[in-house]
Amino acid sequence: MQHLRHCQGLVRVSLTATQRTYLRKAAAPAVTACVGSLSVRWQSNGHHGGQSGQAHAGLSPRWRHLLAGLAAGTGAVLAYAVYNNQAERAASSIEPVTQSSFPIYSQEEVTKHKTLDEGVWVTYKGNVYDITSFIAMHPGGDKILLAAGGALEPFWSLYAVHGQDHVLEILSEYKVGELSPEDRKKQLKLADSSDPYSTDPERHPALRINSLKPFNAEPPSALLSDSYITPNALFFKRNHLPVPRVDPKTYKLEIEGLPGRPVSLTLTDLKTRYPKHTITATLQCAGNRRSEMNTVKQVKGLNWGIAAISNATWSGARLRDVLLDAGYGPEVAAKARHVQFEGLDCDVTGTSYGASIPLVKAVSEVGDVLLAYEMNGEDIPPDHGYPVRVVVPGTVGARNVKWLGKIVISEEESKSHWQQNDYKGFSPSTDWDTVDFKSAPAIQELPIQSAITQPAEGATVDRSMEEVTVKGYAWSGGGREVVRVDVTTDGGKTWHIAQLQNSEKGQEPAPSPPPGQAWAWKLWEVTVPLPAETQELEIVCKAVDNSYNTQPDTVAPIWNLRGVLSNAWHRVKVNINEDNEEEE
Amino acid sequence: MQHLRHCQGLVRVSLTATQRTYLRKAAAPAVTACVGSLSVRWQSNGHHGGQSGQAHAGLSPRWRHLLAGLAAGTGAVLAYAVYNNQAERAASSIEPVTQSSFPIYSQEEVTKHKTLDEGVWVTYKGNVYDITSFIAMHPGGDKILLAAGGALEPFWSLYAVHGQDHVLEILSEYKVGELSPEDRKKQLKLADSSDPYSTDPERHPALRINSLKPFNAEPPSALLSDSYITPNALFFKRNHLPVPRVDPKTYKLEIEGLPGRPVSLTLTDLKTRYPKHTITATLQCAGNRRSEMNTVKQVKGLNWGIAAISNATWSGARLRDVLLDAGYGPEVAAKARHVQFEGLDCDVTGTSYGASIPLVKAVSEVGDVLLAYEMNGEDIPPDHGYPVRVVVPGTVGARNVKWLGKIVISEEESKSHWQQNDYKGFSPSTDWDTVDFKSAPAIQELPIQSAITQPAEGATVDRSMEEVTVKGYAWSGGGREVVRVDVTTDGGKTWHIAQLQNSEKGQEPAPSPPPGQAWAWKLWEVTVPLPAETQELEIVCKAVDNSYNTQPDTVAPIWNLRGVLSNAWHRVKVNINEDNEEEE
Repeated sequence: MQHLRHCQGLVRVSLTATQRTYLRKAAAPAVTACVGSLSVRWQSNGHHGGQSGQAHAGLSPRWRHLLAGLAAGTGAVLAYAVYNNQAERAASSIEPVTQSSFPIYSQEEVTKHKTLDEGVWVTYKGNVYDITSFIAMHPGGDKILLAAGGALEPFWSLYAVHGQDHVLEILSEYKVGELSPEDRKKQLKLADSSDPYSTDPERHPALRINSLKPFNAEPPSALLSDSYITPNALFFKRNHLPVPRVDPKTYKLEIEGLPGRPVSLTLTDLKTRYPKHTITATLQCAGNRRSEMNTVKQVKGLNWGIAAISNATWSGARLRDVLLDAGYGPEVAAKARHVQFEGLDCDVTGTSYGASIPLVKAVSEVGDVLLAYEMNGEDIPPDHGYPVRVVVPGTVGARNVKWLGKIVISEEESKSHWQQNDYKGFSPSTDWDTVDFKSAPAIQELPIQSAITQPAEGATVDRSMEEVTVKGYAWSGGGREVVRVDVTTDGGKTWHIAQLQNSEKGQEPAPSPPPGQAWAWKLWEVTVPLPAETQELEIVCKAVDNSYNTQPDTVAPIWNLRGVLSNAWHRVKVNINEDNEEEE
Repeated sequence: MQHLRHCQGLVRVSLTATQRTYLRKAAAPAVTACVGSLSVRWQSNGHHGGQSGQAHAGLSPRWRHLLAGLAAGTGAVLAYAVYNNQAERAASSIEPVTQSSFPIYSQEEVTKHKTLDEGVWVTYKGNVYDITSFIAMHPGGDKILLAAGGALEPFWSLYAVHGQDHVLEILSEYKVGELSPEDRKKQLKLADSSDPYSTDPERHPALRINSLKPFNAEPPSALLSDSYITPNALFFKRNHLPVPRVDPKTYKLEIEGLPGRPVSLTLTDLKTRYPKHTITATLQCAGNRRSEMNTVKQVKGLNWGIAAISNATWSGARLRDVLLDAGYGPEVAAKARHVQFEGLDCDVTGTSYGASIPLVKAVSEVGDVLLAYEMNGEDIPPDHGYPVRVVVPGTVGARNVKWLGKIVISEEESKSHWQQNDYKGFSPSTDWDTVDFKSAPAIQELPIQSAITQPAEGATVDRSMEEVTVKGYAWSGGGREVVRVDVTTDGGKTWHIAQLQNSEKGQEPAPSPPPGQAWAWKLWEVTVPLPAETQELEIVCKAVDNSYNTQPDTVAPIWNLRGVLSNAWHRVKVNINEDNEEEE
């Protein structure tokens, strides 16, 4: 706070053209409207000559709409102004409050407050905050609304700038209550015996839900590229069945198909008898980007956008180590070909989720298959397989079986529906009358993939900015490393090469992984000039991996009746606001 | 011969629509013209109603042109008729000849006889044959012309039907001389000390030459899909430098970079100290299909068609076994990352060809990297690396170093020009002014590939045939198995799924390889209906591998300044002859 207290009077910083435009058109009036007494002056030293001015206006819906475009990091000047104002307010108005003076709210009540009309409430460490009046002052723009009705923690882990004392101080201004003890302990809803999903865990309200029961949801896609590691609460959720509640004290993992008696391991066995191995690996649902296939012709499946993919660090015992310890050897290798996994989640008939992977992947020294018990340094959350899940890096999400109950070494693939009659690719001319699921191999390694996370489809870009920054992710299956991402805004006449990022922004780049062990995605970013004389812009990206596999140009030729493996070039259309609109 | 002698009079067999058309329009008149007394009657039981007729006509250039379309296997009825006629001739005209009664010809003289005007000569086991008058009778059509001026052996190995006594009997009719003893021993041309290429071996005249010095040539593409294994003489040749002549008795392979003194192995060591390992693996030049990139914008490089790819069985010592025996162990693995190969071929400055591969591939139990000394069961021919070459299955041809002289285990990649400043992929917008070779990884595994070998670009298909049979090859790098090939003739509205073939035609399919060890291509074939009301037809193919990687739709977005990695959908335009042309 120290340096902010001294930051009085005129705020004078160098601004980019982008910042200048946002400030003039959206942010400054908004701040003026909400904070009342605050006015913001700006002065720039940009290469187009100095500009200065002063803005006063009301926070109309139009401005709120414009605010939607405000990207994190563009509001440096605002941040200074806002912090300064907060500091002044803090000095004049802080009153000590006792904990008992706050009302108690349930999570349900908090979740009702998700809009500017209802008021925007969030929670943090068991406290409830009404941040409605802060939203327009938020330096990161209206991304703050993604946390509406839910917890701030995953976002603050995403945007590490919040990890400072003065931010907590600001937040404390807005406290309106406390969460009920039950919700505070994140207790489960009361079981409704008629609903097998009643013991499903709470989820973050920012998730975009594709199906409630079973729960399938993806984070807002713009968030994906803001953090190299996806926070657990925002990691995409893909459940086939109700989430089983497993007691870690009685948890047992059975291993069959090896010489001698079946092996049974407790959670403690897994944690203590084998080295703890940590990898960073991206998981992707086979149905990621299915919605684009639906634009060609309707497919069967959840209508995923581009965010059924996330990246985490995983820790656990290596499956290879466990199998070797359990009796795997040459005589097994001579006959067996597959490793089957059975989940503890099951349907009303008692059939559990199941899948298998090739044995050669499971026992490979460089395959890195984990029996994972930690996700991003925490116990694996219930939605992601607590207490133990398989992580098969480089392989489609569907084989990364959660709530792992049993491993079977076998000559045959899993007989599970999801191995035999789902998660396979077919020709565009194959329909439900002609499909023969035996004719295609089960998806294991996934093909090269990339997508644009920012700007969003339909966003508006200002002509005066002269350029647009495009961000996204890129990943390939089988441990193949992404080596290049090309972006075009002129229909492919010019391709711009994006900067690749394989660690958190601002950190040192991670060392290049050995060939075949590039399990994690790369984020990418490129700033491209806005083409002249067009009001609608199509931004297109395509990636290349180190086997030089590329994405197909279009969706229709890879269309398939299940809508899996959707990895054509990603295309986003944005509108360009012409300068003359400013004169309105 | 026995059953042919009894095959007199009317030839009566069931014919397909295709055979009927060819016979009526091309083959029958040709036979009539050449054999003189022979007339062919046909009768069919096709589903379009029985047809019969009799054809007499002269062998005009037009008919010779039509003959060009005659595919192997369509001339069953002709074969019977021709053999029958030959048998009659043989009975009446065979005269014993002594060997000395034939003139002696040099290979150079034989090679002059490559056209119908000059006469068409071929050689077989040291004898010279003038087969000009036989060409029109050849059951396989004018493919026989591919052997003109050269040896029959590689074609007879390709078309196994020739391996019968009566075929040799027919051939003996056309003997006109014998090869000179020097050429008979396939001796080298006299060394011309001013030309480093003067000791290059003789090559088969059927090869399509892209560059003579160094020698780079591909087989006629239609041949590729006629044999699962490519005969050595027709296997594409890709040399960077003159072919070194290596004496197997003094050959030494040096191995450096392991603990202790460098290891030196003789050819006998390689053959006797390590198990002989055999794999079938496809090699592909990085520049295969470069000519298609040239249609977008000129690139630098040999103008390869679609046949810079071939398939062979390779035998030799596993590099893994040799390295482990030579001292490779964990302490090397902890530091080294690459295995460099140096060839014994070198330029005028003494710089030899070189390349490297990742160590993890070289020592993998399932990597199958060979120090190969046999190709299709023979000593490796001079053009392919005699006496020892590296075969790195699943990896670009350029790393499969021939005439192997030295192996170096190292922390760094090979410093060779071909590793550092060539054989890398770039964005379409990268040009020779902006290219930074350090910015892209050396090509190792290649991406998914497929191409149409038959019909050829510009071929004519008869409307009356109602359908067209399309053939080709498909392959993917990194041991990824091709799982589907789709073919369209209506611009992608309908995709037809091709039959895949992973062994010689007529043989049992080979067992599926373990995941990651599918080193060999698949040939494919599909018969599709001819669309109505179009005179020009574009046939398009695309393949999918078991990582579900697909080929990109178009060439321009993968264009790169070196013209490597050209793997867009393959497109072939053919013309459709309308029925009414028959009435001319």
